[in-house]
Amino acid sequence: MIIIGIDPGTLHLGWGVIRADGTRLVHLEHGVIHTKEPAIPGRLVEIDDALQQVLARHAPGEGAVEALFFAKDPQAAAKLGHARGVAILRLMRAGIEIFEYPPARVKRAVAGRGQADKHQVAMMIQATLALRALPPADAADALAVAVTHARIHRMDVALRTGRVARTR
Amino acid sequence: MIIIGIDPGTLHLGWGVIRADGTRLVHLEHGVIHTKEPAIPGRLVEIDDALQQVLARHAPGEGAVEALFFAKDPQAAAKLGHARGVAILRLMRAGIEIFEYPPARVKRAVAGRGQADKHQVAMMIQATLALRALPPADAADALAVAVTHARIHRMDVALRTGRVARTR
Repeated sequence: MIIIGIDPGTLHLGWGVIRADGTRLVHLEHGVIHTKEPAIPGRLVEIDDALQQVLARHAPGEGAVEALFFAKDPQAAAKLGHARGVAILRLMRAGIEIFEYPPARVKRAVAGRGQADKHQVAMMIQATLALRALPPADAADALAVAVTHARIHRMDVALRTGRVARTR
Repeated sequence: MIIIGIDPGTLHLGWGVIRADGTRLVHLEHGVIHTKEPAIPGRLVEIDDALQQVLARHAPGEGAVEALFFAKDPQAAAKLGHARGVAILRLMRAGIEIFEYPPARVKRAVAGRGQADKHQVAMMIQATLALRALPPADAADALAVAVTHARIHRMDVALRTGRVARTR
């Protein structure tokens, strides 16, 4: 199964694609969409165009996005919502099933604790996926939510279908 | 020029289409997209599908949306952002130029004062566009931002091109 993770934002949208072969996770590609248009409408078009290209290259079957996180101010939340909405719609249009994970759960899944900082997440992702270089923070967060999905959801599926031993 | 106004929301998205013949405003159609899917991803698809149908029927050339309004809490702002982002992207994809107006400016333009309530806006829109029935609040707000755009922006254009007398 190929999984795309998304870390939404109108200025910088991180994405990461992995393949889950049973319990083995293989890194395929990651990147950050840095928008250049001055206003949000143009940025949404840039995001949508760039995401379409990523989806065309990898044809993921499942998508993982951080659940809405409400510590931010309303203005930041609204802007984030624009990018998140456009990314989710693009994934839906590609027939990709979408899963959401709270930020603390993502940090716990990849770094062992819910309070891990961005650098720790990036380092753990580099180690987990055997990347040569430390990924940029937005792409690391996107890979982290994809890895979380692979570990939590795919493991659940495996447990239900009896494909792996039932150990913690 | 045909103008579509949008009042975004993930549960209820209001829209209204008018034609501006010089300074005369003609009502074409309005409605509210009531989404039925339980989760946001499905609702965004419903909104996008329904908006495409409206755009296909009327082929508007300009779109008007209320500017981001930050009195709401971050959760409400983020959800609104999802619907607003998807609607803006759909309009951009249809080649529609997008204009934003602050809520107080819309109320002032249609009801004469920035503190007008929803019912007053709906009544003024009913009178302005000679509608038989009071439009539902979300559609009235969408028509209101379209009327605001017609009055402010189209009037500016007319003044610049010398098509109307330069009064006040």
